[in-house]
Formats: sequence, C-alpha cells, structure tokens
Amino acid sequence: MVYLDNAATTKPSSESLKKAEVFNTVSYFNPSGLYSGGISALKEIKNAKEYILTSLRALNKEVCFTSCGSESDNLAIFGLSKRGYYCTTKGEHSAVYKSFLELKNRGKEVFFFDLNKDGSVNVEKTLDFVKNNEVGFVSIMHVNNETGAINDVNYIAKEIKKINPKIIFHVDGVQAYGKIEYAISNDIDLYSISAHKINALKGVGALIYKKGLSLTPLIFGGGQENGLRSGTENVFGIKVFEFSAKEKYENIKNNYQKVLELNNYIRNNLDKENFEIISSENASPYILTVSAKGLRGETVMHLLEKEGFIVGNGSACSSKNRYSRVIEACGYKKEILEGVIRISFNPENTIDEIKEFVKAFNLTVSNLKKVMQ
Amino acid sequence: MVYLDNAATTKPSSESLKKAEVFNTVSYFNPSGLYSGGISALKEIKNAKEYILTSLRALNKEVCFTSCGSESDNLAIFGLSKRGYYCTTKGEHSAVYKSFLELKNRGKEVFFFDLNKDGSVNVEKTLDFVKNNEVGFVSIMHVNNETGAINDVNYIAKEIKKINPKIIFHVDGVQAYGKIEYAISNDIDLYSISAHKINALKGVGALIYKKGLSLTPLIFGGGQENGLRSGTENVFGIKVFEFSAKEKYENIKNNYQKVLELNNYIRNNLDKENFEIISSENASPYILTVSAKGLRGETVMHLLEKEGFIVGNGSACSSKNRYSRVIEACGYKKEILEGVIRISFNPENTIDEIKEFVKAFNLTVSNLKKVMQ
Repeated sequence: MVYLDNAATTKPSSESLKKAEVFNTVSYFNPSGLYSGGISALKEIKNAKEYILTSLRALNKEVCFTSCGSESDNLAIFGLSKRGYYCTTKGEHSAVYKSFLELKNRGKEVFFFDLNKDGSVNVEKTLDFVKNNEVGFVSIMHVNNETGAINDVNYIAKEIKKINPKIIFHVDGVQAYGKIEYAISNDIDLYSISAHKINALKGVGALIYKKGLSLTPLIFGGGQENGLRSGTENVFGIKVFEFSAKEKYENIKNNYQKVLELNNYIRNNLDKENFEIISSENASPYILTVSAKGLRGETVMHLLEKEGFIVGNGSACSSKNRYSRVIEACGYKKEILEGVIRISFNPENTIDEIKEFVKAFNLTVSNLKKVMQ
Repeated sequence: MVYLDNAATTKPSSESLKKAEVFNTVSYFNPSGLYSGGISALKEIKNAKEYILTSLRALNKEVCFTSCGSESDNLAIFGLSKRGYYCTTKGEHSAVYKSFLELKNRGKEVFFFDLNKDGSVNVEKTLDFVKNNEVGFVSIMHVNNETGAINDVNYIAKEIKKINPKIIFHVDGVQAYGKIEYAISNDIDLYSISAHKINALKGVGALIYKKGLSLTPLIFGGGQENGLRSGTENVFGIKVFEFSAKEKYENIKNNYQKVLELNNYIRNNLDKENFEIISSENASPYILTVSAKGLRGETVMHLLEKEGFIVGNGSACSSKNRYSRVIEACGYKKEILEGVIRISFNPENTIDEIKEFVKAFNLTVSNLKKVMQ
C-alpha cells in the first residue's frame, strides 16, 4: 500500500521508536518520583521542551506537553477568559472550530473570519473586523489541514497587536510543525503542535505559550507541567516526539524540496479535464487537495484503495455535513465539493510511488466517469 | 534495583508491548480514516472497550478512552453540572481533590467527608451528611493510593441512591483496576481507571460511564469517543491497555495472593519499635504504608535507594505541604507523618527481593536513629 494520508496521521519512525524504547523498559519511572529515576525522567522532559523551543526559535516561551493537538488547542482557547469577541477563521480544524462553537454556547461572542479561495484567511477583512470591534482573542491556523494554505501568522499577529496589544493570539500549528521553516514571533502568545503528524506517536501534543501567561488548566490534579496540565507525564511519547522533531528539523529543507517535487508531479500530470486543483501553488507542499469534478470523493477513495493507494477526503466525513465545511467556505460549488480528495505526503514517499499513483488516479476517475455516463 | 513504587507507575510488560507493536509499525492508521486501515483501527478500539467492560462486569455501561486517570477524574467531575453539594473524601488523589477545590473556585458548594484511621471514608458520617443536605454529586475512591484502604463503593453508592437516586456517584478506581476483583454495580455512574498503573503505557486512561449520561467534554473537536473526547485516538496505547488488563484479570487471584504474601512478610518483619504500620490488614495488599517514626521519610527513601531499593513517599512531595494531606486526615501526629514511606508492589516482585528489602529497611532505620541520637 502507498500511504498518502499523512495529514491524518503518520507511521512512527523506527529510528525514533528505537531511541526511545529505553523509556518503556529501563527508565519507566514516574517523573514525580523523588528518587534518581524519577528526577532523571523529569530532566528528560525538560530537555524535550528545550528542543521544541529551539526548533521554533522560541526560547523566550514555555512548553506544556498535552495528550494531542486537540487538547493543546482547547487549553489555549478555554484557558483565558477574555472580554470582547473571540475570533477565528472559517478554515480551522474542528479542534478550534468546535471549541469556538462551545464558547458561543457559554455566552461568549464569537466571530469567524472569511477565507480566500485557497483556504487562507482573508487578512484585509480580518484586520478590518479587529479595528472595528472589541476583540479579546484571535486564533488563526498556520497551515490549513484541508488545503495546505499557509497563513502568515507572524504578520497577522503583528498587525493585530498594533491595533490592540492586549489581544491574545493563538496559532494551531499542527500541520506546520516539522514541515515549514518558521520562527515563532513575540506577537504569538500560544502555538499548538502534535506529535503523531511528524512520525512520532499518538498521545502527545504540546502548547507553546508566552512566559507569564496565566492559563486555567483543563485537567487539575498533581500539578505536573507547572500546574497547567496534571496527570503522569507520557515520558516515552514525549521523548519520541523530541527525537522525531529533531529528525524533521535536521532535514527540513530537503524534506520540503522532496515533497514539493512529489506534489508538483501530481499537479502537472492529473488529467486537466477531470480534476480541479484546490490547493494553491504556494500552499504547504505536504498537502494537495483536488476534486474529481462531478464524482463522489469517497467512491474514488475506495476505488484507489483497491489499487493500493490510501488517500484522505479531508474532514468531510461526518453524517451531518455531506461536504467539507472548509472547502465550502473557500467558495466552491456542489460539483467540486462532492469530489474532494486530499493527498498528503511524507518525505518517505517516493517519486516512483507517486507516478504509479497518478496513473491509477487518472484511470480510476476516467473509468468511473465512463460508467456513470 | 528493586522497584517498590508501583502505585506511582509500573514497568510496561514486554509481552503486551510486543503484542501491540503492530499498531506502531503496520496498523498505524487514524481511526477516522474511511479506508480499511482506519476502519480496522476503530474496530480495535471498540474491542478494547468491550474488554474493559467485561473485566469490570459492566456490560451495560460505556467507555471513553482518555489520556490518563487524572483526565478521567476531571471529565467525570466537570462533565455534569449538578445542583447542591459536590462531595468527596479527604483521602482522594489530587486529580479529584484539586478538581473539587476548582469547583469551589467556580462557586459550587463542596464538602469533604472524614476518613477513618486507615484512610477509608467514614461511611456513617458520609451517609449522615447526604441525608441532611442537598447533594448532587459524590466522588469516593475505590482504593486509597496512599494507604491502600478499600472503600466498599458499591455499598456506599447503594445507600446514597436510597437517600436520593438522582445523586451522581463517581469512583476513582485507578488503584483498584486490575488488582482487586470487582464488578461495577448499577449504582455507580462513573468509574475512572488508568493504564500505566497496570504495566501498560503512560498516556492512556478511561472513564466508564452509565449509558445515557450526558457529559460535557473537556476537549472539543473531531468528535471522537462519541463526541465525549476529541483528538486522534491513541490506538497503540489503548491496545497495550487492553492486553495488560487481560494479563492482570487472567491472573488476578494468583497476583493478589502473591502480593499479599510479600506485603505480610514486610508487616511481620519490620522492627516493631522503629515502625508504625499505617495500612490496615484488610487494605489492598498492593500498597503498604508505614512510618519510620521520628525520622524523615524522604531521608530514609534516599538511603534505601543507595542500597538498591526504590520506594515512594506517597504524595507528600510538594513544597507547600510538608506532610501528606491524606495521612494527616487519618489522624496521625507529626512524629508519624514525617516518617511516611509507601511500599507498593507488582506481582513481578519476588519474596527474595522483599526479604533483602526488609533487612535493608530495618538496618537503614536503626542506623539512622543511632546517628541522630
């Protein structure tokens, strides 16, 4: 099988699993233990935090390890009670989007910024809204998980802080971390990341936050993570996260180029009459969303699986929403929305795999069209 | 090193790690994926839930996997907004205790039931309070993590429901699960468990809840776990939890007997003049708390580590509280409180290890006493 749903989850790297195995067989101690094994486990977590901050060139910030990207987003969003509007975009992952709906349930005023056709946030409209309303909190994703569109979050945060420096600015960086070169600016207060999207393990995420920011925990108890997130730390998972992040950042330029090549090959070789390319050319190369116009994406996906290729269909897979909320917010019509397929890469994917994939994709779609005529 | 802090965390069993390795190397798919790998991952989670329910003979209940026991407790406590008192005991783990302090912060009326000398809850006083006050929610731990005292939660829940069937009854079962034979009764609405306490991995817990109970999530997003806990499921960790639970329940009687023998050996062979045994004889044999009277537990702990033995000092390790809040609530005075040491077992511990441990423990304490005279 050729796996092209790497934005959903990735295969853990055997190298990092091996390196971290020691934490399940020898150094399995509870970091709260006052004996040397416990103290050493706590030090290992501290080292992992330092690396995470180094990788984002965010040395004046802090890290709170969580259990996933969704928890990181929720901790950021519910952790501060701000006056005024809570604003986000129409393109957010549901971990942010649904949390905003819950804020609304709880009586907060919420507002969703419009998207451009590629899934990026409309910056002009965003800044206009912030200028003309009392805004307390803004959350804008870094890389859109459905289209790959990159928001220039440092620029947007800077402009928003110029309008009102007290606004808290959060970024969901789950699809950017380990993939896009980036330094968190001083204007970013909170930045969420996830381990299992970069060949580390499920069960670990992190929230990077500005020093001095006083967040209310989601989970109370033993006071781990400076009181911000109680519960015995997932030492093994945290170390795998650190190791995988190192692997990614040491190769970030090469990986980017490689994935860009795979992405471009598909872009350039899909039959133009059958496909609409949704992801823009300046999107993250790790995500390429296309539509098999007039067909059902899910059907195409199942046919491709029979040919040995696993692709995603974004986040459209809910009984309530037939189409992707995000692609719909980009302004596409029914014919395009129905056929959405998300292809997402890993540097481990090879050009030969991709050539085979394009052949199968073109053939599957043209055959299906013939059958349906 | 002989590890005797198994109530803090346990060494993952190599057998279950091996069995579950497949979920990090072959079946690493996201359970939300609509392809066969994703569907199969979701089925694996469903099977794990079925086993968890079987192990607790709770087939008419539901399971929500979480990231740890603390999250399970928090989800139970903050998940329902009830009128009247929120009640718990003075002996709870901080995941419950601190959550109740937060409820108080948020304006709820909270009440803490008194303990008996062994750390169990005073049932008479508990029922009296419930009779004489409007109570909405009760949380009582199954096995005390500091003394091992077992609360007869099925009996207490039954009596409380007789007084008012609308009271929600939660049990922190973290130190009971996989160790004490137990069937969750119909009177128990919520029951929290944790994986890493039974030789599974850190990063996974579960909340067992009554069908139809409508809980507010702590984490909003993709709607995993029936909308109760969003975030990509930790499939690998969940499967290790299932396998470890099976290992524990298949051997639960033998393990209990074995650990009881280790426990009794220590009870019967510690120098009576130097030690006070805090755990009662009908406590869970997995936890044995003693006090090296007049000495500092932490000092003894460090000396024992030099001799090759790792023990815990309960949850006393916070800068604010010099003594364990729980042992203090049992009614012990300063001389005893200072010397508290928690010994907690695993069926893997051997009687020979324990014999060596008792020798070292007696000698360490008598030497320290001599030095201090």
